[in-house]
Amino acid sequence: MADAARAAILPHFRSAALTSDNKLSAGFDPVTVADHAAELAMREILAERRPHDAVLGEEYGETTGTSGLTWVLDPIDGTRAFISGTPTWGVLIACGDADGPQLGIIDQPYIGERFLGGFGRAEMTGPRGNAPLATRDVPSLDDATIFTTFPEVGSRDERDAFHRLAGEAKLTRYGMDCYAYALVAAGQVDLVVEAGLNAYDIQAPIAVIEAAGGIVTDWRGGPAHDGGRALAAANPDIHAAALAILRDAP
Amino acid sequence: MADAARAAILPHFRSAALTSDNKLSAGFDPVTVADHAAELAMREILAERRPHDAVLGEEYGETTGTSGLTWVLDPIDGTRAFISGTPTWGVLIACGDADGPQLGIIDQPYIGERFLGGFGRAEMTGPRGNAPLATRDVPSLDDATIFTTFPEVGSRDERDAFHRLAGEAKLTRYGMDCYAYALVAAGQVDLVVEAGLNAYDIQAPIAVIEAAGGIVTDWRGGPAHDGGRALAAANPDIHAAALAILRDAP
Repeated sequence: MADAARAAILPHFRSAALTSDNKLSAGFDPVTVADHAAELAMREILAERRPHDAVLGEEYGETTGTSGLTWVLDPIDGTRAFISGTPTWGVLIACGDADGPQLGIIDQPYIGERFLGGFGRAEMTGPRGNAPLATRDVPSLDDATIFTTFPEVGSRDERDAFHRLAGEAKLTRYGMDCYAYALVAAGQVDLVVEAGLNAYDIQAPIAVIEAAGGIVTDWRGGPAHDGGRALAAANPDIHAAALAILRDAP
Repeated sequence: MADAARAAILPHFRSAALTSDNKLSAGFDPVTVADHAAELAMREILAERRPHDAVLGEEYGETTGTSGLTWVLDPIDGTRAFISGTPTWGVLIACGDADGPQLGIIDQPYIGERFLGGFGRAEMTGPRGNAPLATRDVPSLDDATIFTTFPEVGSRDERDAFHRLAGEAKLTRYGMDCYAYALVAAGQVDLVVEAGLNAYDIQAPIAVIEAAGGIVTDWRGGPAHDGGRALAAANPDIHAAALAILRDAP
């Protein structure tokens, strides 16, 4: 499915048709075309190989199933990155049940990087070959690197809470979309804090990070797989330290 | 030189030694090791092939020459990106004289992307092969994508000016370091605004962007090659529109 999504999306990334002139004259933008094509390509494979599973996709909504398993698809997470040519968007694929995802993939087609977690596996492949994924053990906020997609996280209350947390961290970085979650799984960074997420934004990151030894919850320590506020942490210590600051956000 | 820098740096990117424990116990960090090794590798080539040129490098300062040409080197631009595992740092190489750079390279070793401009050439090579570089023709701010490395650009006055400009733009993105300049040259984004730069941060981007049809000045329309405040624009119209907002920053 991730291979099929790559093939559907890459012709549209940094394509000449992605100029505003074309967008205006054609009435649609290439990221939308790529998004739809990739989700259809993945759904075709599921229809053939997993006809009894349910599917929840960003572009084509929900398809019911009878197996108890649901595939959760975001063909292009990070459309702003995509339209600005930055290779930090990704294809997100998760499979799980009502309790959350059991398998997840974060795929970056342009770089050729794939991060996979679930069923006892936590591994990546990329330009430099294969490697296991394992979160790191930085125990305290003052040694932590924290990521969020926007400096303007969610509501004012959410933004205030984020900045209180970021103020305690060693380094704050912005703008990575799903790639930031992959970096937690790869042991490069310690925390990702987001708000206003959909289920399809967070299910694949949950599976990949948890398989690599990390923790993903909402801002009060509950399940995050339905979306909303998410706190992804490399280990239980840093998770507890971040949660202590975020949990009081109204 | 860019090949030599790649070979010197890549073993240190996302290496296990880049954990804080190792940093503390060894008393230095791998990004510093990689930075030094890459600049030395590039300087060795220059000493052999261009012994009469001057060299200005981030790590080893200035070496005088007699040819009138200076090579300006930043072995790792974007150390914060590097230490967080994000492939948006780059090796910057420029060559020019007192009037500014005539040749520049922005190289991203992990992705395997190289953006080159100068002497009539403007081209990139990457995972999907070679392509010419050309900036795009978005004429007005309300259709523009603007980049800066930090939401907290420079001084308060500089930050205010940046946010006035960003408020007029269609899309603002953060955190890309030198990669944002490469995206201007590649026709993907329209503006990069920075402050507090050194000469070695901006000379390669100037050469690459100008070869691709763009403009790089300071915030008052003067030369930017000595560092400080930089405004990189895809075309003269968008440059003039951004300059009208930035030029009054105290």
